[in-house]
Amino acid sequence: MIRFTPVAVSLLLFAGMSAHGETATSAQMRLSETGSRTTIAGPAEHFTGRAYIDPLFSAVAPQRTGGAYVTFAPGARSDWHTHPLGQTLVVTSGTGWVQQWGRERKTIHAGDVVQCPPGVKHWHGATDKNTMVHLAIQESNDKGENVNWLEKVTDEQYLQAGEHE
Amino acid sequence: MIRFTPVAVSLLLFAGMSAHGETATSAQMRLSETGSRTTIAGPAEHFTGRAYIDPLFSAVAPQRTGGAYVTFAPGARSDWHTHPLGQTLVVTSGTGWVQQWGRERKTIHAGDVVQCPPGVKHWHGATDKNTMVHLAIQESNDKGENVNWLEKVTDEQYLQAGEHE
Repeated sequence: MIRFTPVAVSLLLFAGMSAHGETATSAQMRLSETGSRTTIAGPAEHFTGRAYIDPLFSAVAPQRTGGAYVTFAPGARSDWHTHPLGQTLVVTSGTGWVQQWGRERKTIHAGDVVQCPPGVKHWHGATDKNTMVHLAIQESNDKGENVNWLEKVTDEQYLQAGEHE
Repeated sequence: MIRFTPVAVSLLLFAGMSAHGETATSAQMRLSETGSRTTIAGPAEHFTGRAYIDPLFSAVAPQRTGGAYVTFAPGARSDWHTHPLGQTLVVTSGTGWVQQWGRERKTIHAGDVVQCPPGVKHWHGATDKNTMVHLAIQESNDKGENVNWLEKVTDEQYLQAGEHE
């Protein structure tokens, strides 16, 4: 859901920069400390309500996976969107809603995991009465793209009757 | 660090199985509920001490990313290992240690993120006095491989003087 820019990479603290003969490679493990990454407000262009994005890591070739925590205030949700290489959500706190286009809205709780295949139109967010935080993980395609934003989720769509539980 | 088998995929609950004409694709969002996935003891073959693996998601082509929580008791750690396409650790609680071969051991805290490039030999675990939990995320290569296990981390390596902070 989140598009990372190269700026995010610069947020990482590069640890152990001095080279030692003991290593068989010049590649280095990178440690990004808590508190060193700046929270980004979810832009009104792609979110309804108050959402906050905490970038965690971005893809460094040949790796293509990036991730961020997203915190949704009650009533907040993403716009409808798809991901060229899909997305995985790990709910870390609270209660939220997620919906695939044309399907029933589902309630998600801390500990739930949602896997969204490539190209599947969906939205996710908090319920109208609860906060929800998830870790969002997505892979970028060869063009560096990891999300395609679509129209906003209307109040009618958001507040629909959900699944029968 | 974790090798997922196809069994892990079967742990996922497939939601919304009935097709609706509104969807442009037959692909379906999958919801795996908290408590539905079984914790796996970290095998003595690859871990020292008590470690517990909670599988979260495994790669479904064309996606190649899988993830799991790993909980380390005080003193517990992985063996030395590498990842063909690297690994990212998001520390979710506690305090642990991580070390790249030939470099100083580093202390990691909840909220820290560690990115390990492909082929870099390393280990991670709890400190000798604290638990540590991290979300481990790794991509699989074309052969389905995401980890190469190496020798055990000796007590001398584990308890070395760490970085000067």
